[in-house]
Amino acid sequence: MDYEQSDLYKLRHSAAHLMAQAVTELYPGAKLSIGPPIENGFYYDIEFAEPFREEELPKVEQKMRELSNLKQPITKRIASDRNEAKQIILQETTNGQGPENAFYKLELLEAIPAGDEVTFFEQRATDKQGKEHVFIDLCRGPHVENTGQIKHFKLMNVAGAYWRGDVKNKMLTRIYGTAFGSQEELDQYLHRLEEAKRRDHRVLGRELGLFMFSPIVGSGLPLWLPKGATLRETMGDFLKEEQLKRGYDPVVTPNIASIKLYEKSGHILTFREKLFPFMEDEEKETFVLKPMNCPFHIEIYRSQLRSYRDLPVRLAEFGTVYRYEQSGELAGLLRVRGFTQDDAHLFVRPDQLLDEFIGVVELMMLVLKKLGLQDYTVRVGTRDPASTKYIGHEENWKQAEDAIVAACQRLEMSYMVSPGDAAFYGPKLDLIVKDALGRDWQMGTVQVDYNLPERFELEYIGEDSKPHRPIMIHRAPFGSLERMIGLLTEHYAGAFPLWLSPVQIAVLPIADRHNEAAAALAERLRALKLRVIVDESRETLGKKIRENQRQKSPYMLILGDRDVEAGTVGVRHREEGDLGAMSVDTFLAKVQAEL
Amino acid sequence: MDYEQSDLYKLRHSAAHLMAQAVTELYPGAKLSIGPPIENGFYYDIEFAEPFREEELPKVEQKMRELSNLKQPITKRIASDRNEAKQIILQETTNGQGPENAFYKLELLEAIPAGDEVTFFEQRATDKQGKEHVFIDLCRGPHVENTGQIKHFKLMNVAGAYWRGDVKNKMLTRIYGTAFGSQEELDQYLHRLEEAKRRDHRVLGRELGLFMFSPIVGSGLPLWLPKGATLRETMGDFLKEEQLKRGYDPVVTPNIASIKLYEKSGHILTFREKLFPFMEDEEKETFVLKPMNCPFHIEIYRSQLRSYRDLPVRLAEFGTVYRYEQSGELAGLLRVRGFTQDDAHLFVRPDQLLDEFIGVVELMMLVLKKLGLQDYTVRVGTRDPASTKYIGHEENWKQAEDAIVAACQRLEMSYMVSPGDAAFYGPKLDLIVKDALGRDWQMGTVQVDYNLPERFELEYIGEDSKPHRPIMIHRAPFGSLERMIGLLTEHYAGAFPLWLSPVQIAVLPIADRHNEAAAALAERLRALKLRVIVDESRETLGKKIRENQRQKSPYMLILGDRDVEAGTVGVRHREEGDLGAMSVDTFLAKVQAEL
Repeated sequence: MDYEQSDLYKLRHSAAHLMAQAVTELYPGAKLSIGPPIENGFYYDIEFAEPFREEELPKVEQKMRELSNLKQPITKRIASDRNEAKQIILQETTNGQGPENAFYKLELLEAIPAGDEVTFFEQRATDKQGKEHVFIDLCRGPHVENTGQIKHFKLMNVAGAYWRGDVKNKMLTRIYGTAFGSQEELDQYLHRLEEAKRRDHRVLGRELGLFMFSPIVGSGLPLWLPKGATLRETMGDFLKEEQLKRGYDPVVTPNIASIKLYEKSGHILTFREKLFPFMEDEEKETFVLKPMNCPFHIEIYRSQLRSYRDLPVRLAEFGTVYRYEQSGELAGLLRVRGFTQDDAHLFVRPDQLLDEFIGVVELMMLVLKKLGLQDYTVRVGTRDPASTKYIGHEENWKQAEDAIVAACQRLEMSYMVSPGDAAFYGPKLDLIVKDALGRDWQMGTVQVDYNLPERFELEYIGEDSKPHRPIMIHRAPFGSLERMIGLLTEHYAGAFPLWLSPVQIAVLPIADRHNEAAAALAERLRALKLRVIVDESRETLGKKIRENQRQKSPYMLILGDRDVEAGTVGVRHREEGDLGAMSVDTFLAKVQAEL
Repeated sequence: MDYEQSDLYKLRHSAAHLMAQAVTELYPGAKLSIGPPIENGFYYDIEFAEPFREEELPKVEQKMRELSNLKQPITKRIASDRNEAKQIILQETTNGQGPENAFYKLELLEAIPAGDEVTFFEQRATDKQGKEHVFIDLCRGPHVENTGQIKHFKLMNVAGAYWRGDVKNKMLTRIYGTAFGSQEELDQYLHRLEEAKRRDHRVLGRELGLFMFSPIVGSGLPLWLPKGATLRETMGDFLKEEQLKRGYDPVVTPNIASIKLYEKSGHILTFREKLFPFMEDEEKETFVLKPMNCPFHIEIYRSQLRSYRDLPVRLAEFGTVYRYEQSGELAGLLRVRGFTQDDAHLFVRPDQLLDEFIGVVELMMLVLKKLGLQDYTVRVGTRDPASTKYIGHEENWKQAEDAIVAACQRLEMSYMVSPGDAAFYGPKLDLIVKDALGRDWQMGTVQVDYNLPERFELEYIGEDSKPHRPIMIHRAPFGSLERMIGLLTEHYAGAFPLWLSPVQIAVLPIADRHNEAAAALAERLRALKLRVIVDESRETLGKKIRENQRQKSPYMLILGDRDVEAGTVGVRHREEGDLGAMSVDTFLAKVQAEL
């Protein structure tokens, strides 16, 4: 059943009302705007007279409990006309505090189409001290029957949100909360959140030295620290090698272009809101940061005459793109303003579409396997037969949709078809990954595109010596390196697989006199392309172990007198603990088997 | 002797006048502006009534010859005052064509400081037909005695140039020419130009599929085609590995930053003219494309407390930066608007400066050796003792300059000291490379910097537990990948050394029936990390050889019936020609020895 039709959705909606009631009782003058249920809970956006701090949430929760215990019946009221609706808003929903408190609700009322019924939900009861509690809110409902049903809730945090999401409007205070049907479900959810917090890539990213943000560099623009840069490079090297094997050609394109390029591609219209401000130079040329690499790769395709024998042309680039996001929307590596896509575009003949599509999906599956993300589902986005928004010929669509489905079958993948999920320019396949916390991430997309070849009038000369139009495939197995590393950090709680770990082996000399042997060992390991550090800090062995454990290096090699004498190392594994002394050769065989 | 004091300089200056005289005779109404001697020749900027085309140059040259043959004496005239100077300009330099023709000369007159003498140079003679030829130009001179001395000249080409170099002014026509004291010198120069043209990286870049420009992407923004991208990656991989061995840590930073970062670094003032237009977002944050990586690396240094034991910190990045150039200043890969630096910044203690400097210079020498650019000189830029522009303590400067000189001595390099060539914030060392055409290129710079550590208040905790300021070293062995690849392309005329060639081996099956064996051979070679293509075009062997020769692939391996049978290949080398049939193992041993 749809979440929006569920009892849980209704419960959370009522919890939002309960919270708003508590707020209006505690904070006279607070102006309510909207308070919908959302995934995992609810929120209410409120304009407070004084800044509201997170420390005040328990007080609001306490008041909610009191109001819940009153078991106020929740009833629906239908306004007979707009005028009555306006009067209810002005007089009843403001707790008698005057018309300026009704500002947002009046705007909401205006937005209700003429002719639509205007409804309110009211909860009302008198407490033991004889005081009457009442809360009336402009609302479509539905709600639970009485506030006593809202028992298992928690207020989570506070954020800023612009009225109607528009930066030109006032910034309101958004209070997030959640509610469940049972204490057990609430506890489970809070535990999952705890776990997510422990795995928070923003915290781990800092602790493990992966990346940082700097206020004077700007929000949403990560700086990759040495270990994070190594992680990126390791991922990149792996994929580059696989792509080389599969006949991809590397290209490198600029981070800016004249807006003429994006006028031609159409992105200037379809992607406008994500574009950074334009740069107009003194010669009246206007540049923009590139939001996507495709038009550049198309220019490269167009730079020479292509014959049917040259296709498929597969152009790959780790391209760094910039997309504007409001600062309030940014979230660590998961939502940034600049990120690097492992992008590639395949220009194929119609008769090559199926094989190339299979090749792309196979590569994506290989990537997810290598990354240890093997719990995923496949969604095929096709046309909505009822819609007319799609461009391109009927037969092309059929061919492409058939090719995607045939590819899934050929690869023996189970898949679900999602009609209406295609882009307006072609069908696609999404890989939806489930992480260690059971969360779904849409990671890889393969997109068939008939639009850009048309707009840029791409051609190849066929065997019939006539010009034909190629089909484009867009694909990015990692998606964005930033988002993928964010996901991987949380999935592994920072303990990356051996091949991916920025530091694979930490060599720990027990005392200063073992430093020389440690350095020699490190050199030997590095010659085998292993990533090794030597911990020469003047700490005790216990402290060194704890620190390197905290850094999640897969292996620690401990070197003491006996080891130096016998040519052994004391091996310690991140998860398995002490593995005892062994020869370096034995250790290397173990590592090679794991890589 | 200084070029500007030389007879050649004087001769070229007079040649510019001779050309201007020819132009005014051939194109009545042409307005002269300035016409100075320059390196390798001279130019004159002229406003023509009708567009002037390069095809018209021979006509101008012919007229110059006639005017030269008249042996017009060149005489100096001194205006008695400004008013007389103005009258001479209006009446005599315009060939009687009215005051609007004198526009530029009048502006030039106004720019001459009051009190300075105003001089003109005049050349005048009557030809055999009794026609008088006269040319008078506002000019400081000096000039040769008569136009008969200007014998060995050539007009080269035509370009656009804004009056006073300001895009807001009118675009004038610049005619370039050259002149020498003897025909032999002129011929040598033209031959060198021919050779440079044959090696022109812009032409070769296209022919070899290295890079391209696209009008709708924008001027000065190269797109790297597969082979060029491979070249970049090969250079990058080589340097990354060398840097890893030397304890450099990779980092990755964004291509944009808030202008706050560059306010703090001071670049917003000192580097303003090279900055792209700012981007102000709707939240009033202003971003700018990064012109240099240093402030980002500094932010990374600053992100954690550093102890004396952590230094040196060596942060390396292939960082793509954007610097604004007027479109008229752009020149292939040699002058672009976006380029990738193989940048690194070392943060060192004063007692580490010498060793780290030596390490950096050694790496740069290794890089030049690897690239086959071994003809270079070393220039040490020190303070001008007379100037006060330098910041920082006397003892720091002395230490840094001593360290650079000591490094040169330790490395047994010959070097010249160039006082006054230091930046205001520290001394530096430049490597000046001579290419195959004998041209000098300033390629690598190592710069000591006391300024940025001061501005960003960088610190490390010393052995004395007190904060100390580190010294920064900036360095980039390739400089810019774009410029270096431009240089290398011309240096090698596109025939890159084996290790660097985008395609190292072209396998040429003689007929279609050898394609399978060719593919198997290619696979075997690729497994050894060799870059191989198979030429399966349906051309004759002769044509295949010519085409791959034109592509400058170091080796061609020809596969025919006998080869397939005997397990041999016919080896052909780009320069050495046919090397005969040999076993694949023998060939591989040869290649490995060369790599």
